[in-house]
Amino acid sequence: VSHVVVRSSVAPNEADVSALARQGVSTVHEAQGRRGLMAAYMRPIYPGRRVAGRAVTVSSHPGDNLMLHAAVEQVRPGDILVVTTRSPSTDGMLGELLATSLRAHGAIGVVLDAGVRDVAELTEMDFPVWARAVSAQGTVKVTPGSVNIPVVAAGAYVRPGDVIVADDDGVVVVPLETATAVAAAGVEREANEAGKRTQLEAGVLGLDLYHLRQLLADLGVTYMDAEGQ
Amino acid sequence: VSHVVVRSSVAPNEADVSALARQGVSTVHEAQGRRGLMAAYMRPIYPGRRVAGRAVTVSSHPGDNLMLHAAVEQVRPGDILVVTTRSPSTDGMLGELLATSLRAHGAIGVVLDAGVRDVAELTEMDFPVWARAVSAQGTVKVTPGSVNIPVVAAGAYVRPGDVIVADDDGVVVVPLETATAVAAAGVEREANEAGKRTQLEAGVLGLDLYHLRQLLADLGVTYMDAEGQ
Amino acid sequence: VSHVVVRSSVAPNEADVSALARQGVSTVHEAQGRRGLMAAYMRPIYPGRRVAGRAVTVSSHPGDNLMLHAAVEQVRPGDILVVTTRSPSTDGMLGELLATSLRAHGAIGVVLDAGVRDVAELTEMDFPVWARAVSAQGTVKVTPGSVNIPVVAAGAYVRPGDVIVADDDGVVVVPLETATAVAAAGVEREANEAGKRTQLEAGVLGLDLYHLRQLLADLGVTYMDAEGQ
Amino acid sequence: VSHVVVRSSVAPNEADVSALARQGVSTVHEAQGRRGLMAAYMRPIYPGRRVAGRAVTVSSHPGDNLMLHAAVEQVRPGDILVVTTRSPSTDGMLGELLATSLRAHGAIGVVLDAGVRDVAELTEMDFPVWARAVSAQGTVKVTPGSVNIPVVAAGAYVRPGDVIVADDDGVVVVPLETATAVAAAGVEREANEAGKRTQLEAGVLGLDLYHLRQLLADLGVTYMDAEGQ
Amino acid sequence: VSHVVVRSSVAPNEADVSALARQGVSTVHEAQGRRGLMAAYMRPIYPGRRVAGRAVTVSSHPGDNLMLHAAVEQVRPGDILVVTTRSPSTDGMLGELLATSLRAHGAIGVVLDAGVRDVAELTEMDFPVWARAVSAQGTVKVTPGSVNIPVVAAGAYVRPGDVIVADDDGVVVVPLETATAVAAAGVEREANEAGKRTQLEAGVLGLDLYHLRQLLADLGVTYMDAEGQ
Amino acid sequence: VSHVVVRSSVAPNEADVSALARQGVSTVHEAQGRRGLMAAYMRPIYPGRRVAGRAVTVSSHPGDNLMLHAAVEQVRPGDILVVTTRSPSTDGMLGELLATSLRAHGAIGVVLDAGVRDVAELTEMDFPVWARAVSAQGTVKVTPGSVNIPVVAAGAYVRPGDVIVADDDGVVVVPLETATAVAAAGVEREANEAGKRTQLEAGVLGLDLYHLRQLLADLGVTYMDAEGQ
Repeated sequence: VSHVVVRSSVAPNEADVSALARQGVSTVHEAQGRRGLMAAYMRPIYPGRRVAGRAVTVSSHPGDNLMLHAAVEQVRPGDILVVTTRSPSTDGMLGELLATSLRAHGAIGVVLDAGVRDVAELTEMDFPVWARAVSAQGTVKVTPGSVNIPVVAAGAYVRPGDVIVADDDGVVVVPLETATAVAAAGVEREANEAGKRTQLEAGVLGLDLYHLRQLLADLGVTYMDAEGQ
Repeated sequence: VSHVVVRSSVAPNEADVSALARQGVSTVHEAQGRRGLMAAYMRPIYPGRRVAGRAVTVSSHPGDNLMLHAAVEQVRPGDILVVTTRSPSTDGMLGELLATSLRAHGAIGVVLDAGVRDVAELTEMDFPVWARAVSAQGTVKVTPGSVNIPVVAAGAYVRPGDVIVADDDGVVVVPLETATAVAAAGVEREANEAGKRTQLEAGVLGLDLYHLRQLLADLGVTYMDAEGQ
Repeated sequence: VSHVVVRSSVAPNEADVSALARQGVSTVHEAQGRRGLMAAYMRPIYPGRRVAGRAVTVSSHPGDNLMLHAAVEQVRPGDILVVTTRSPSTDGMLGELLATSLRAHGAIGVVLDAGVRDVAELTEMDFPVWARAVSAQGTVKVTPGSVNIPVVAAGAYVRPGDVIVADDDGVVVVPLETATAVAAAGVEREANEAGKRTQLEAGVLGLDLYHLRQLLADLGVTYMDAEGQ
Repeated sequence: VSHVVVRSSVAPNEADVSALARQGVSTVHEAQGRRGLMAAYMRPIYPGRRVAGRAVTVSSHPGDNLMLHAAVEQVRPGDILVVTTRSPSTDGMLGELLATSLRAHGAIGVVLDAGVRDVAELTEMDFPVWARAVSAQGTVKVTPGSVNIPVVAAGAYVRPGDVIVADDDGVVVVPLETATAVAAAGVEREANEAGKRTQLEAGVLGLDLYHLRQLLADLGVTYMDAEGQ
Repeated sequence: VSHVVVRSSVAPNEADVSALARQGVSTVHEAQGRRGLMAAYMRPIYPGRRVAGRAVTVSSHPGDNLMLHAAVEQVRPGDILVVTTRSPSTDGMLGELLATSLRAHGAIGVVLDAGVRDVAELTEMDFPVWARAVSAQGTVKVTPGSVNIPVVAAGAYVRPGDVIVADDDGVVVVPLETATAVAAAGVEREANEAGKRTQLEAGVLGLDLYHLRQLLADLGVTYMDAEGQ
Repeated sequence: VSHVVVRSSVAPNEADVSALARQGVSTVHEAQGRRGLMAAYMRPIYPGRRVAGRAVTVSSHPGDNLMLHAAVEQVRPGDILVVTTRSPSTDGMLGELLATSLRAHGAIGVVLDAGVRDVAELTEMDFPVWARAVSAQGTVKVTPGSVNIPVVAAGAYVRPGDVIVADDDGVVVVPLETATAVAAAGVEREANEAGKRTQLEAGVLGLDLYHLRQLLADLGVTYMDAEGQ
């Protein structure tokens, strides 16, 4: 087992990251062909935040946050830390002090396939965290791990430099190579949705807007009146 | 397997629905003899809403929201859409666009034994949804299903025309035939509770209010002082 | 099976309780050597409250809240009720009426390894409850149980008179005998953290603050640049 | 809340029940259009049994098996007891003694949306039980419930007299009215599958047997060689 | 945080342990008033074993089995190791090698509120383990813990020297002080059950055997014939 | 969204695969530095099988097994099919017929991050499947997906051509590039374990074999006698 901390300057385009942050998780997930979504157990510790940033990844031993400290040094402004443990854990790997340190180095949020603590303080700081659990259980700093290697976090494959988008709908990963294309596809999707929204608000049915009536008939769906009416 | 969309004009009495909406889930559940409660995993996407309305039911293939579009056409003002999948799924079957369409046709909320997305937008719209999960995972529109047939949603049996009551405590189903009786029983219960509340606020013990001291004795519960006191 | 209601005047020191309430769950859990934390499934019904108080314990049959009424009589101002069921249950054992009664006798909160209901009303009352589930499912009052005996609640061992601390991070139990020492250790910890916070805010790395660079080297963690950079 | 024990002589045709028992859960579920399957958490306590029988239903308070005793009197040879609790419970509602009593009255198995105990003894007796949990936790006999009313068990709607089919794949409910048609459809399905099995054993591809190649093309699925090969 | 290994020669009576092993989990749990049962997620890795023995307890850091090695030295013939982690973990803390070592020192089984691995080898050795998960994920040996201190394992309070009983129904803890009384109560219960079994086999109904008909009437349970029969 | 079926002849060395199959999941997982383990919810449908083979991967829509049929054509003797769904699903995607087809083309097992059915028949065939659930719920054949692309299955990253090892301990993935090295490391590990086993059987303590006594002392673990002994 070899453990490494990789220094990486690979980064997505800032304009793309801004566009993805505005679009949000559901739009981005659609725009990239429904790939890269983390499991639904990843929830924000408080509602209402929508962020996007470059992934700095951490692979940790469960119950040990040593490598999160190593990761802080690799963080640049606008980054999002993505932490996974080598086996399932809900221990509170990150609290107010680590968040303070991360913010001091420019991190704008954390995605943690493990537990978080100091939730009241983090909410007060307005430092958004997406996690699988809230737990006061602290960690030790004794076992090695890696920073900036590819990881699987909450079922999604994340490489350092990929774009992380997170909001009330969850967390999605956009591969670095496709960030520009996805951001563009998202813009197109937003425009398309705006048009549909106007029609749906006016009462047009999705059955007509999406031309579904023939499909229903082809699938053998029949219409009938309720008995006795 | 035959799939149908049933046009139904069966509807509960408006005054009953209003009463049930005011009473809320816990009172209504008691008033109808503790039947019809959906599983506790059904949670509101934001707190503070209390609604009641006629059920329009949908039975869908997992990962496919075709039949939700068919259902919109069957919605009338004041209705609540109740969606279930034929096998467990957390996919986000409903988002802002479908909610916009549902609202345009008068729906006042959705109960979804599956996933929901666009949570920030739905909160902004103040369109309440009760769901088992939040997930950005979108769906396809290719498999048939049914609208307005009896379904089991989150462990409760729901027929089109039944009354759905939903609030921060969850979701309960009131059969159409008993809605008037349940609403009346709920009114009685509220009055009864108001009286008890006053006494309990004044410090009267439930042991006395409910005459439980003799029962405790009959059950062999004994009182003792802590050792060494 | 013998069932008892124990009258107990054993109580922690008020100043200790105040200190523990201010420190909160994560600090207290650390200060007492990471013992006594309840499982992460115990969540507050609304965010933002931090309380500490003497435990009054209840061991109940699932689906039966008879013994909660017996417990109210044993409550004194500042107490926190800790309720566990003899087998897993999510039934709503406590609602607005019982909370009204508990408050009338001075209770400041409830920790419930079961379900709670009337969440909207409890939020309105600002009466904090930590529970494993929200459920409108009511209970009966027919089976015996015990008050103020040692219990295991959400994986933690609680004796009457122990101090319960609860906030957005969860619930922790401080044994009565060690409350003074833990409160003192918590004060020390807060001071220590304040110093660290200042340094971390200034950009000092945890790697340096905690002297971790040598440890990383000893553990065989190596630094490298990303390929192709 | 009214509680009843319904004496019912409604019963499916014996030949249909035999056919359904031979076909097993997966075939029957297909044959009736993929309806009526219980949740996947319902597992047999030992592998290898396949049964079908008339449902005698029980609605119980959690942690109370009083109504199971009332149900035994309603059991006739070949019946299967279907037990559900009014809120979720894993308590061991049935053990060796109740199974002995059920067998003495002709029951051939139990489907229990709750817990079972005495698993070693039940296995020794070869009395099959499908349950959501194994738990030594016993129950009381103090709260009323109903026998032979419609229930929702593990997500499926079951009425007394319906046919229950259970095996290693789970549990499925066949409505009484459709048992004959479903059994016939199952026979047809078995014949159809036998033909397919022969072809598939011979190496014919499902792509060809089910004519899926054109569909793949229509859906835009493209074939390519791995890079560098 | 102080960590200790306690050398303890406290032990239950051998005859009591033998009796408890013969009675099994469900009988023992009843005989001691339904206390001390571990959570239903604790399952045997293979069916058919029933054991009882003195508890040697271990409190470990998650993902670290250092203290299991310290515990082996404290094991005497007939003991059962009870292992818990300070926060939830499914890592495989015990495999074939540790089991070999434990058996060499006389241990007859392990109860592990964590994961186990080498299940095929352990089955081959006929060394029974009850665990919450099977996982090949290994552990480290770097963090301190304690041996032979009181622990909460799978929701049950266990002190060194208590009797552990485990079989296909799960795991129950009998406090050392009450082992003799519980064993005696179990013998009585077995005799009582034998008599009931004979009657139930002969077709006597539980309704009559337990005199429940009057209770049903008192609770308002009414008998009726199915409609239309 | 583009969907592809990739024809790939990339394959691991047969001797390596044989060695990995003999070593089993826990040894292989250790030998490759504790990477690539699937989640513990992946369980064999019957105990006692240990296999290794080349991965043929499938990415499917939930509730749709169209792409499994496309995958059969890509299977060569000795392969293991690895199936994942784009969102969580427990539907029975594979039963006896598909297994018959897979076996006819040489597949030796299936790893399914979804549900399986026909468990009795598959056991009879001795065709091993590792799955997250057993469910009779069938699937449709209407939505596109991909074969032989990289996937995340049960939390592990799998590329076509990687080696899958599966047994009673779960499922582990060995990257193609490292298969030879891992197989060699496994051989070394087996030899090392054999030596340890002999010593542990003879009663040597792990404390001495692994030189842990000094570590315990350094970590502050102290030894003491139980009170009163």
